[in-house]
Amino acid sequence: MKDILLIPGPTPVPEDVRGAMFEDMIDHRGERFGKLLDRLQFKLKKVFMTSRPVYIFPGTGTGALECAVSNLFDRGERILSLSNGAFAERWIEIARRRGLEVDALEFSHGSAWELSEVEKALKNKVYAGVLMTHNETSTGVLNPLREAVYLIREISPDTLICVDAVSSLGGAPLMMDEWGIDAVLTASQKALMTPPGLALVAISERAFKKVLNLTPSSYYWDIKLADEYLNKKPSQTPYTPSLSLLYALDRALTMILEEGVENSWRRHEELARFLRSEVRKLGLEVFPKEECASPTVTAIRVPEPLGFAKIKKGLEERGVIVAGGQDSLKGKIFRVAHMGSVGKNELLIFINALKEVMGLV
Amino acid sequence: MKDILLIPGPTPVPEDVRGAMFEDMIDHRGERFGKLLDRLQFKLKKVFMTSRPVYIFPGTGTGALECAVSNLFDRGERILSLSNGAFAERWIEIARRRGLEVDALEFSHGSAWELSEVEKALKNKVYAGVLMTHNETSTGVLNPLREAVYLIREISPDTLICVDAVSSLGGAPLMMDEWGIDAVLTASQKALMTPPGLALVAISERAFKKVLNLTPSSYYWDIKLADEYLNKKPSQTPYTPSLSLLYALDRALTMILEEGVENSWRRHEELARFLRSEVRKLGLEVFPKEECASPTVTAIRVPEPLGFAKIKKGLEERGVIVAGGQDSLKGKIFRVAHMGSVGKNELLIFINALKEVMGLV
Repeated sequence: MKDILLIPGPTPVPEDVRGAMFEDMIDHRGERFGKLLDRLQFKLKKVFMTSRPVYIFPGTGTGALECAVSNLFDRGERILSLSNGAFAERWIEIARRRGLEVDALEFSHGSAWELSEVEKALKNKVYAGVLMTHNETSTGVLNPLREAVYLIREISPDTLICVDAVSSLGGAPLMMDEWGIDAVLTASQKALMTPPGLALVAISERAFKKVLNLTPSSYYWDIKLADEYLNKKPSQTPYTPSLSLLYALDRALTMILEEGVENSWRRHEELARFLRSEVRKLGLEVFPKEECASPTVTAIRVPEPLGFAKIKKGLEERGVIVAGGQDSLKGKIFRVAHMGSVGKNELLIFINALKEVMGLV
Repeated sequence: MKDILLIPGPTPVPEDVRGAMFEDMIDHRGERFGKLLDRLQFKLKKVFMTSRPVYIFPGTGTGALECAVSNLFDRGERILSLSNGAFAERWIEIARRRGLEVDALEFSHGSAWELSEVEKALKNKVYAGVLMTHNETSTGVLNPLREAVYLIREISPDTLICVDAVSSLGGAPLMMDEWGIDAVLTASQKALMTPPGLALVAISERAFKKVLNLTPSSYYWDIKLADEYLNKKPSQTPYTPSLSLLYALDRALTMILEEGVENSWRRHEELARFLRSEVRKLGLEVFPKEECASPTVTAIRVPEPLGFAKIKKGLEERGVIVAGGQDSLKGKIFRVAHMGSVGKNELLIFINALKEVMGLV
């Protein structure tokens, strides 16, 4: 039996999706590719819940974050970051390199954003944008995105709201247009159950208007250019697209839409609840509080004196692969993802293996 | 029968290479991935002819060019571009966005660099770097890279020599260490016969020393970070790698090394000669002069009054896909690639189809 891969991305890719990559190359300036790109647009819009185009770049989630700050803001603009984990911190670094002035509003790792603090910060200074990590993969925390978006829209309506949805899109509720998000950024290898290598970027109409008046610091991540090529007949990309990965994404999106996006959200939530309850039955502690525990990745405190190395190794010997903590959480937590195609059977195997490693059976 | 794809990338991918992508995801922080990355390093070094690491980013050739200027130069530094086609022009745009002062030394499209002009430019001003497109895909010209590198090294030894080898590496002679090139940049989807989506970047030791003292404008393309992760045990990448494409590249590189890199160069050269001779037999004109005609892509003047649209459509009806000219060469030339896995049989089918379209049979 092959390993049960429960790291928070890349997630296991269904056979059908991997099989789609056996198709050979086609002309990326021709009709067939144009139709593929149009079909992907149609499907991605449903998953992003937007009427706006979704730009697809050969890249990763980190690339999507860089794309947003390269296009939406100009050097010297002031940005607020809601920061409660490693991925929020990475985005701050990306934004600073682009020459933005970033104020980091920090919350403790393992907790969600406190909206009263967000309110204070927004009343204190004017921000061109807010950077928000919807699901903080490093701590297993799902932040209250909808509430935060509504709050920002009310207090500071001109601020562009940028959301890292890398480990949430498809696995947790996110409605780009209805909530009023200006940039939704994600990648192929998490809840979209496609191999890694695609960065997905959607921006609102008002954000696009601003983009039209700026020259992005990056040519590679240029949204204006991506938009121009997407509107050609046939639809295209400015440079060679990752064809094989697009074949895979096309197949995976069909599977997601067949299930229904809301059904997928619900399935992720139920699976996460199931896992947390099983974990607690073993006497273990889920790292974040219940009310902000993520539906896509569960962070568990490492039980002492067993320690992380023994858990990791013991699980691996039983064919189960989990992830450790990052940075200051190294050795303190371990993380189990339940995104995309991961189902209850995989989690049962994990729980059973964990019991064995803990000497409970 | 499936279409014969003769566009200058993506090139047809052998079945074995596409089949390698059926393998499922693995932990990109684990031992198995580390071994894959080490194996890729071993093989890539042989193809790049370097003892230096070859950094692999999820991205394309355009990304590799952006990576080089983001890391090797600081805002305000002066750069010389040897420009004789669309891809050299794209690189200039990328460099200007990074804040570099670029002098473009322009040569007519369809001709190679004139070394006497390069010499004059280098004696006239001091440049931190030179940007050079080895094989100009847009015109089918192979530039005299080796001679130019030696010249620059002699006249201006501190200038960093950056080479776009996107449509040459593996298909035309290029010896990074022996010739003394500071940055070799390429992508997966041309002579390396792997699907698009991987940017490959190797830099010399002296270039790396400069990189260590700069903060790149981009986080995504950060070479320092890529190097740090490559040196971890097990070897890693800073963010999620494009696993499926790496499986494919691993397989393709084995095929290339089994043939032998020099043998691959020779095969490309012979195939190109064969095609040019066949094209001339039809009374057609090869766009560049014989002495600088590319071994990987052949540009042919569109015969009047037939016109490009009829050629393109006629070939397509016969299952053969070629590319047109770009920008000012649109409608004036068409391009046939013979890179990677394309062989004599595919070119015979093309020639026969072209004869039919031209009404010669």
